[in-house]
Amino acid sequence: MTFELHLTLAKDTVEIATLDLCRVLLIRDRTYPWVVLVPEREDLRDLDDLSEADRVQAMAEIDRVSKALKALYRPHKVNVAALGNVVEQLHIHIIARFKDDPAWPGPVWGAVEATDYDDDTRAQTVARLRQLLNGS
Amino acid sequence: MTFELHLTLAKDTVEIATLDLCRVLLIRDRTYPWVVLVPEREDLRDLDDLSEADRVQAMAEIDRVSKALKALYRPHKVNVAALGNVVEQLHIHIIARFKDDPAWPGPVWGAVEATDYDDDTRAQTVARLRQLLNGS
Repeated sequence: MTFELHLTLAKDTVEIATLDLCRVLLIRDRTYPWVVLVPEREDLRDLDDLSEADRVQAMAEIDRVSKALKALYRPHKVNVAALGNVVEQLHIHIIARFKDDPAWPGPVWGAVEATDYDDDTRAQTVARLRQLLNGS
Repeated sequence: MTFELHLTLAKDTVEIATLDLCRVLLIRDRTYPWVVLVPEREDLRDLDDLSEADRVQAMAEIDRVSKALKALYRPHKVNVAALGNVVEQLHIHIIARFKDDPAWPGPVWGAVEATDYDDDTRAQTVARLRQLLNGS
């Protein structure tokens, strides 16, 4: 398999875990708890490029990550989106949303500039999410 | 079943079809080919509120609608998103995107005001999408 993570995704994230299909990445933006799933397959752009088996697996992993974010953050809503207009490698955003977050009720993309976590908080966040994903 | 379509979704759309799980609606906005899927279940807000069987079915219907939009419009990308920050009833946006659409490469929400189709074009669009969904 020659899957390679897109350079922009690599730069903007840190790895949390690798599930059966997807690499699970934390976006370096403490504004929102924001995770991205990247199916480790070559040359995918849209959700409907996934095979049927991978679609089912992707949905199961979206579910697992959504539930981990809910367990950790108790958000008002979880937003799930595969857009990919800028970075065309298929990636699925899963974002915990709060009524007092700076983009609410709009979508997060382009709302405010990303602010990275400090190193300790980022490491703790990754560790907690990894634990929740492995425990479920 | 006492599923009822949210009034805002009813006002902003016309019905294309009803699949096994989801009602398929065309957004009254000729700016983008934009379809919304609404699982006909009570009290759902997030994707991870779906049962496992319904999740698999939802993913299959997302795939079917994405492929119908691609067949009809040959877009550059398809965007898929379950946001629901404003209308909380679970609904899944599927939007055909083009490099010359007015929101490109940003997300469509809030980019430009919706402009409804004229009656003939809307009816034709619904008929073509219905035919593609029933034929697949």
